[in-house]
Amino acid sequence: MTENLAEDLDALARELDADHVFHSWSAQSQRSTLVVASGRGTRVWDHAGREYLDFSSQLVNVNIGHQHPAVVQAIREQAELLTTVAPSTVNLARGEAAKRIVGHAPPGFDKVFFTNGGADAIENAIRMARLHSGRDKILSTYRSYHGNTGAAIVATGDWRRIPNEFARSHVHFFGPYLYRSEFWATTPEEESERALQHLRHVIEFEGPSSIAAILLESIPGTAGILVPPPGYLAGVRELADRHGILLILDEVMAGFGRTGRWFAFDGYDVRPDLIAFAKGVNSGYIPVGGVLISDPVAATFEDRVFPGGLTYSGHPLAMASIVAALDAMASEGIVDHAREIGETAIGPGLAGLAERHAVIGEVRGEGVFWAMELVADRETREPLPAAAMARLKSALVARGLLPFVVDNRIHVVPPCVVTEEEVAEAMTIYDGVLGTALEGEG
Amino acid sequence: MTENLAEDLDALARELDADHVFHSWSAQSQRSTLVVASGRGTRVWDHAGREYLDFSSQLVNVNIGHQHPAVVQAIREQAELLTTVAPSTVNLARGEAAKRIVGHAPPGFDKVFFTNGGADAIENAIRMARLHSGRDKILSTYRSYHGNTGAAIVATGDWRRIPNEFARSHVHFFGPYLYRSEFWATTPEEESERALQHLRHVIEFEGPSSIAAILLESIPGTAGILVPPPGYLAGVRELADRHGILLILDEVMAGFGRTGRWFAFDGYDVRPDLIAFAKGVNSGYIPVGGVLISDPVAATFEDRVFPGGLTYSGHPLAMASIVAALDAMASEGIVDHAREIGETAIGPGLAGLAERHAVIGEVRGEGVFWAMELVADRETREPLPAAAMARLKSALVARGLLPFVVDNRIHVVPPCVVTEEEVAEAMTIYDGVLGTALEGEG
Repeated sequence: MTENLAEDLDALARELDADHVFHSWSAQSQRSTLVVASGRGTRVWDHAGREYLDFSSQLVNVNIGHQHPAVVQAIREQAELLTTVAPSTVNLARGEAAKRIVGHAPPGFDKVFFTNGGADAIENAIRMARLHSGRDKILSTYRSYHGNTGAAIVATGDWRRIPNEFARSHVHFFGPYLYRSEFWATTPEEESERALQHLRHVIEFEGPSSIAAILLESIPGTAGILVPPPGYLAGVRELADRHGILLILDEVMAGFGRTGRWFAFDGYDVRPDLIAFAKGVNSGYIPVGGVLISDPVAATFEDRVFPGGLTYSGHPLAMASIVAALDAMASEGIVDHAREIGETAIGPGLAGLAERHAVIGEVRGEGVFWAMELVADRETREPLPAAAMARLKSALVARGLLPFVVDNRIHVVPPCVVTEEEVAEAMTIYDGVLGTALEGEG
Repeated sequence: MTENLAEDLDALARELDADHVFHSWSAQSQRSTLVVASGRGTRVWDHAGREYLDFSSQLVNVNIGHQHPAVVQAIREQAELLTTVAPSTVNLARGEAAKRIVGHAPPGFDKVFFTNGGADAIENAIRMARLHSGRDKILSTYRSYHGNTGAAIVATGDWRRIPNEFARSHVHFFGPYLYRSEFWATTPEEESERALQHLRHVIEFEGPSSIAAILLESIPGTAGILVPPPGYLAGVRELADRHGILLILDEVMAGFGRTGRWFAFDGYDVRPDLIAFAKGVNSGYIPVGGVLISDPVAATFEDRVFPGGLTYSGHPLAMASIVAALDAMASEGIVDHAREIGETAIGPGLAGLAERHAVIGEVRGEGVFWAMELVADRETREPLPAAAMARLKSALVARGLLPFVVDNRIHVVPPCVVTEEEVAEAMTIYDGVLGTALEGEG
């Protein structure tokens, strides 16, 4: 391909995008013009060959890296055989994928319900909890993100609407976040204890017997990679058990390697009743998500119809990609690598940046799941203003790094396969941008 | 592959399914044991080579037939290049797919928002209608199916929840259905007129200024392939216009060839504001759906953030499969073929069955989108009981036909590429089963 033709393709991609693509979470006039045409490992390219180091993993999903050859090959092979099949049928790839996922779960989780992504995984976990418990309310934290669906089944007219008409019964509370404590705590232990007391009060005032489930990201991701303090998740489990409330852990972003563990909650003394997953399970190579179901919840639907489903549940290409991705992650030690690179390279690298740049208020995380929280003032912890964050983001892209920026934070979330050299390269870029792009800031 | 090995694979698939796969819309103890391992055109096979004529199109999605070589090839090629990318980036396959879809829409539809499937297409169409109109309520019919999501965004804690907290504001009304008229009508014209009067009353009593949108399947599908009577859709449009209400047409099942037209509503004097699609757009080869957005609605989000999105929106493999599927459907005349086969083979075939079998109360449809409504008594129109329907379904599968059975109906919904010979084969199977499986029924 000549250079001109390549540039023409980038221009064509931008033109078609401007003309016909409506973008999510955006004012359309503000959409990005960054073209991504191909990828490999931690890097992506546009048609003309401009290279970017992907420290976003796109939307924190490409855990295995871009274009892992074993996963690509599995998709190609399954595509030759059978691309689509109804969820009600039996399909070998689906059984194999479910077996792999169950194999990484704690004992007592034997069944998997597949969905199209993380949002509908959460929808179905909530549905299961409500029907299993016979209760209605779902408690979740203000600082959380669980997906973007929320209306279609209530719009549905036939019987499938009726067991699902629950949509107002959501209550929000505050989770632990020591850096901006809601509870005036000064130590992790105090934050944990006080956050648990707050949750206990919310449960008591809402009425324990009205609460179906507590829904938590094991480590809240988009909200800021809020690693829970010691004892918090175990304490939530205890509160739930005391009142017959189910615990749903959302592992959509944190699961399948991101923390350096198969599941983020493996690092804590807690066992959920339902686990929602997506993203890392196949790195998003084919849209898919699902719910890992504990045996008592699964038993509820042994002789009773489960009123949920989607046309593409258990899609064979998605299933084949899960099998290949999980097998490759296991055989290549990719999850262990994520833990080690977090300990030896990303963590120390970010700590070094925090020493050199007063704009970094806090660094937190593990594995390939980190956040730098940027502040206008280290004392008051006032968040760095949006305009400065936007300048930082542009500067990072201009220097060839795809960042994941949320509010006043840069999330450092490369694929699990990121190398030491790539981490060093990224740290140099962050360092340079924090040093220059903020000149003149407060 | 030896015959024994093939039988072993079927057994393994059943075993893994029983052990680890949680099935949608089912009591788990009642799940199907039918294995599907491969397919081609209108036929699928298990590992041992047992063949089935697919008159379900799985979940009425395989419009182009199983394993169309051009679509399989496009998936393989895109898989080599880039399997996943964040929705915020620009990607050429996405622009090409959007351009194809816009090309089949009426003038004034220039933008496409991509989702993971039909349910989230509906979710986002509703979201757009509410934010565009500043109103809340959604009117839809009792006899409808619009998808299975409905809670996750309300469970979400951050700001993205707030513009989406609408989930109780749904009102249901009765649409036209002459065979079981809610309005005591005796002709299609009367049914249309009375159904419109009913809708007008519901709008007036709900308060027109509280209603964001009327949401209708152009031809309600799962509810029974309820072809709208003359003037109904045009009348709905007129009512909507009179009150500044948007019209969302759900073309998830009816769109992209199923009726013998690109969109089902092309056969009626009606123009919607938003069109939800999925299934036929790429025959479900990769999970995908979306919303076709009219220019005034798109303009609302030019400088205002659209608060919706999913990690896998505009997924490159889905996009490549849309381009290949729509190009093949156009160049091979697949949509025209669906119309013709409906007129010359399926329609006459079903009319013949209705003459021979008193259990058929009504046959209705067009293209490859038909229903036989079965009754215990032609006079009272009492639906055939569930036990008899279950026997019919088993008998059809036993004779090698995959049926689509809902309530007291057999939906006759093969791929658009079904041949005259395959239709004849299916009619023979239906004929035999209706003649024998119901012996002893009332």
